Amino acid sequence: MSAAVPAAVSTVDTSWLDAIQWDAAGLTPVIAQEASSGKVLMFAWMNREALAQTVTTGEAVYWSRSRARLWHKGEESGHTQRVLDIRTDCDSDVLLLSIEQTGGMACHTGRHSCFFQRLTGGVSDGRWESVEPVLKAPAEIYQHKP
Amino acid sequence: MSAAVPAAVSTVDTSWLDAIQWDAAGLTPVIAQEASSGKVLMFAWMNREALAQTVTTGEAVYWSRSRARLWHKGEESGHTQRVLDIRTDCDSDVLLLSIEQTGGMACHTGRHSCFFQRLTGGVSDGRWESVEPVLKAPAEIYQHKP
Repeated sequence: MSAAVPAAVSTVDTSWLDAIQWDAAGLTPVIAQEASSGKVLMFAWMNREALAQTVTTGEAVYWSRSRARLWHKGEESGHTQRVLDIRTDCDSDVLLLSIEQTGGMACHTGRHSCFFQRLTGGVSDGRWESVEPVLKAPAEIYQHKP
Repeated sequence: MSAAVPAAVSTVDTSWLDAIQWDAAGLTPVIAQEASSGKVLMFAWMNREALAQTVTTGEAVYWSRSRARLWHKGEESGHTQRVLDIRTDCDSDVLLLSIEQTGGMACHTGRHSCFFQRLTGGVSDGRWESVEPVLKAPAEIYQHKP
């Protein structure tokens, strides 16, 4: 006599990942905002795997469109981002991360924020002016250790 | 005897618009951050004309992808955005607006910010939780006047 074996109850619920409206390329835009200062430090993209890894590790993992691979932010520079909070918007098609920025620099140019070009002037004489200091030269950030 | 007529000197310089790395659809992502609170209120898109109109009028004009037309934010709700500052990032492919939000509501759901869904739980039991109050019912915001 064989007793019916109950199917294992799955405890993995990834419907929160399905709720995101991934675009045609499987990506969603991501805004990284520094928790302590409120400054928007950078903008990047995630796919499903990047978001899952971000939640699992607690550090920001993006999808690099130029390199077409997962990108653990800070993997070369050491400037990782600890993720404190993740939100999505009314359309569930953008993510907003609240982060702590290791090293105080999010930008590969060595600046605190990537948003360092400010528009001055009007529509007929506009100009993008660099308004944030370089804190560390990129050559120093990305030097390869022997 | 005919004198050479000097060509009129053009005073319109739109190279600042050309500097933006518009995507294949002619768009760029835009983050709207409230100047007074530092909160990120919404995310949208602009094309070249939307950005030019934003600079000309001092109020945020986006490109509505769903309606495929220029969208003067607040044109129906009255919840316009006064633009205090415009920045772009290191790659010149995202815009960050510093704004004042008329009516204290950026979201069509009647909330202050569109980013009202917060992730709770881990990768295997995540859930998007609504964490911001509705300040005004959408039916009241968008009622059509007789």
